[in-house]
Order: sequence, then structure tokens, then C-alpha cells
Amino acid sequence: MLYCVTGCAGFIGSHMVDCLLEQGHDVIGIDNFSTGLHPFLDHAKQSPRFKLITGDLQDPSVATKAIQHVDAVFHFAANADVRWGTHYPHKDLEQNTIVTFNVLEAMRANQIQKIAFASTGSIYGEATIFPTPEHAPFPIQTSLYGASKLAAEGFIQAYCEGFGCQAYIFRFVSILGERYTHGHVFDFYKQLLQHPEQLQILGNGKQRKSYLYVKDCIDAILFAMKHATEKVNIFNLGTDEYCQVDDSINWICHYLNRIPERIYTGGERGWIGDNPFIFLDCSKIRKLGWKPTLSIQQGVVQTIDFLKHNTWIVEQR
Amino acid sequence: MLYCVTGCAGFIGSHMVDCLLEQGHDVIGIDNFSTGLHPFLDHAKQSPRFKLITGDLQDPSVATKAIQHVDAVFHFAANADVRWGTHYPHKDLEQNTIVTFNVLEAMRANQIQKIAFASTGSIYGEATIFPTPEHAPFPIQTSLYGASKLAAEGFIQAYCEGFGCQAYIFRFVSILGERYTHGHVFDFYKQLLQHPEQLQILGNGKQRKSYLYVKDCIDAILFAMKHATEKVNIFNLGTDEYCQVDDSINWICHYLNRIPERIYTGGERGWIGDNPFIFLDCSKIRKLGWKPTLSIQQGVVQTIDFLKHNTWIVEQR
Repeated sequence: MLYCVTGCAGFIGSHMVDCLLEQGHDVIGIDNFSTGLHPFLDHAKQSPRFKLITGDLQDPSVATKAIQHVDAVFHFAANADVRWGTHYPHKDLEQNTIVTFNVLEAMRANQIQKIAFASTGSIYGEATIFPTPEHAPFPIQTSLYGASKLAAEGFIQAYCEGFGCQAYIFRFVSILGERYTHGHVFDFYKQLLQHPEQLQILGNGKQRKSYLYVKDCIDAILFAMKHATEKVNIFNLGTDEYCQVDDSINWICHYLNRIPERIYTGGERGWIGDNPFIFLDCSKIRKLGWKPTLSIQQGVVQTIDFLKHNTWIVEQR
Repeated sequence: MLYCVTGCAGFIGSHMVDCLLEQGHDVIGIDNFSTGLHPFLDHAKQSPRFKLITGDLQDPSVATKAIQHVDAVFHFAANADVRWGTHYPHKDLEQNTIVTFNVLEAMRANQIQKIAFASTGSIYGEATIFPTPEHAPFPIQTSLYGASKLAAEGFIQAYCEGFGCQAYIFRFVSILGERYTHGHVFDFYKQLLQHPEQLQILGNGKQRKSYLYVKDCIDAILFAMKHATEKVNIFNLGTDEYCQVDDSINWICHYLNRIPERIYTGGERGWIGDNPFIFLDCSKIRKLGWKPTLSIQQGVVQTIDFLKHNTWIVEQR
């Protein structure tokens, strides 16, 4: 098969590229390298079955040229940082909503029928049901990031109805593991590198969050695409647990053998739009037969271990 | 108070302008006249308290200049036709989602805190609960129109959380009454003008739809804004009933004293993305104390009566 992976040099996209190549497929990767990193494609670039297109999908003609003759599109290109929405609202609209629309139009122009989309548990806003299922009550958005991904989901669904496409929409918890380049584990590790004696924590440390190991995430996506057959297939992706920010800090400090003074900024939210409790009901994909291999704690440790052996990532950001 | 009404020359927008002026407020109206009609502003233009800006809100600088010093924005500018989404997908993205984003950015730049937004019952897609409440299970979009309005809703909600705005989001059923310029009553009337002996009906005529009289709609919006105080206030707006397309045809034919041959295109959907059953649970706004004055049947008759006395509208479209 020939697949297209947008955001191919990103954290999750680059893992998908590696996995598809390993399974013997051909892959066209697209990235504008706004946050993607060339070293994440070191392995892929050695394969003759990988073709890299450097371009920005905000330009519809780039999308139309790149997304041709493929069996499916893995649309992972995005502004992935939920935290800075109120600083750069345009980014979420342009890089998440409009880029997805451009991908859909390119698929329509080139008669591509299948899309997998990296959505987010953030679209549940501040959920009222925990664990939160895919059919939770119609949520209210609390972040620009969530709003922009919800918008993208909606257009994908409408294209399925209007133009006969098939979609696989995955609402992720936060993803951890090799090539992780932003988020709380990254922030904590960076702080402990710079000043091991002190750790500043956004919020009160009691926020309850969920995480999934990146290779489990990739595995789940491919599993769902193999076994689910609806026109629009929506799956929460996570483990069946959550942890407190403080738990995560304990695991990180224990692994690094540090005992920093903890300074909390306070409040139940770390930043505007921070969600104090994220815990997704993943029974839908579990019932299909998939299960994660790593717990949240194992994922955190794996991530810290990766950062420790790849401090260049921490230093350049 | 000074209010801004976007889409001020449209069906619903022009009624809001008239109502606000009648209540003694000052009004800045914006329209690009892509579908809005100057005659709908004949009354407003006689008032020294009305200022008309002709401009396209797809240009952010138009939005920023127009939306200044106002107490609230009534954002009604939109591509309002659910039926042609698959023909012009860009229109829904640009005129509904991006224009709403531009309005929000203009509000942020000019420190405007309150917005009323014309959303749609179409965002419930093919609902599974009837009547459908605001907190229905997270829907799947079935039309570009619904998707683009859902996207707009999401951004409005995120701006409320991120920038402290207050929003009133109204999910309308189809609106009927004076100045109605598109939709099934319009189509049927136009056909009966052109060939009174024959009526072509999209679908099987059994589609169950809900309608609300435009002046009841305006009344409901202002009522909700007076009595609801949440950060994000979402209300379904409709009557507590639905009708079949065939009922509506009966009322129209009876009023016009016509007995056309009915030719059905067949199928439970009139077009791609047509929703065979729309029936919203409006108990939330009813509990606040509002109620409609006209039934669906009365609204249909009022609309036909308006068209009969304003055939120029039918002739120009």
C-alpha cells in the first residue's frame, strides 16, 4: 500500500512513518518543519520506499500535489500545543482547522477515500462524565486547541457523508515516549537539568491526567483501521487509568534521583483552558481487541529515559 | 445601548436590526450583500440611530474596524443554505467558520465582551434522541453547513474561556416568516408560481422538520440574553412540534387554492446531508419563561402570505 503521513517529522507522525515502512508499505511524508525535526526521519530516509515532501499544507496546492495516488492519509500535521492557544489563536485555526480542510479538499480532488485523524481528548472540554466515552454529552469547548480539532473532526465527518469518504478519528490523551518534545514531562526534565534543586509546577499538582505510550498509540490506530468498518469511526485512545501531576513528578524525580523543592503556582488549573481532569473511556477500542502494553508510569519513565539520552532535544527548545 | 448586527440585511439579521431600533438602541449593521437585500433595511435606513457598513467580514480588518465600542455583537452573517454544501464546501468554511473567527478576533482587539450567535439544529447531525436536547450525545456531522457552524460554536466557547467573553448560542430550527428568501416553502411557492399544476418534492415528503416564526426567534434571543447569565449560554430554539413536508405542502396548497400533481424524487432524504427528522427539545428556554406565539402551520401560512405580496423576491432568485 501507499500511504501519506502529514506531519511526518513530528512526534507521532514520525513513529507512524517508521511503522508503515517496517510493515513493507510505501510512504509519502509531508512536513513544513515548523515543529517537526529532521533527525526523527533519520531512519525513514534510509528507505527507498519513503519520499519526503517539504511543504506547508496551509497552501491548498501543496496539499493537492502531495496527496495523490495514496490508499489513505494519516493526517497528523497540527499545532499540537494546547497550552499557548490564547497567545496565538490564529495558529489553531490555520494549522488545525484550515489545514485539515485543505487535506480533505485534496482528497476529494484526487479521489482518496480514507483518512485517519489525530484528534484529542481536549474536545470534551471539562467533561461531566468520567471516564468520558465517545458519546459523552455534547461538550463545551474550553481551549482554542480543542475547538480547532473539533472543527476539523466536524469537517471530516461532513466529507464522509457528502463525498463518501471513510474516516478514523482518534481522540488521544497526551502521548508519551521516544521523540516526545513538549508537555509536562519535557518541562519538568528541562527544569531539573537547569536547576536540579527546584521544580516549578503549574497549578496545584493535583490535576488528574491521562497518558498513552506513543508506540501503543500507533498500534491502536492501525488496529482500529483494520477492524472497524463504519463510515465514521471515532475512538478514544488511552490507558484505563489516570495519574496526578504529583505522581508523575514522583516517578521522574525517583528515576533521576533528584529531590527538588516543589514550587506550585497554585489553582486547580495550570493555565487558562487547562483541564483539571482528563480520563477517557477507552472501552470501545478495548472491545475491538486492542490493549496498551505500557502503563502511564512506564510511559513516563520511558520518556525521561529517552530525554536523558537525547538532551539535544531539550537544549534546542 | 449600541449593538452590532452582522448579516444585517439578511432574513433574520434585518429583523433583529428593526427590533433593536424599535427598542431605542443604536445599531451598526454590517453586510456584504452576497445574499442580503437592501429593501430589508428600508425601515432601518430611516432611523438616525442606524449605521450601515457595507463590507466583507472575511477581511479581518473590516471586522476590526466595524466592531468597535459596541455593547454586544449579534453575529448572524453566514452562508445559511444547508443544501449546497457539497457543491461549495469552501463557502461554509469561509463564511461561517473563518468569518466567526474574525468577529471573535475583532471583539478581542476592541474589548467587546458579549456575542449572540445564530447556530443551527443541523449540528446535531442525525440525532438519536427526539426531541433533541442541548446536551444530546456528542453528534457526528452530516453536512458542511452543520460542521462549519459547530466549528464556529467551538471557537466562540473557547474565546469565552480564554478571554472572558460571554456567549449566547442559539441552535435554530428552520426559520419562517417575513423576508424569508430560501428553503422549502420558498421553493414550493416558486414552483407553484411557475407551473401551478405540478410540484416537485425532494425526497419522499415524509421528512419531519421543525420551524419557528422569525419574530418569535428574535424575541427568544433577546429574552434569553436578558435572563440567562452563564459564561456560555446555549439554547435550542423552536416550537414544541414538528411537521411532515407533506403537511407543509397541504397548508401551502390550501392557502393558495391549488391542487398540483405531486412528484416525489424519492428516498427519505431530499439531498445529501438532508436530515430526515429534526425536532429540538426547547424546554431549556421554555423554562426561562419564553414561548412562541405562532405554530408551525401559522408560520408557514404567514410566510406564503408574505411571498404572495412580495413576488419580487421570488422572481429575482
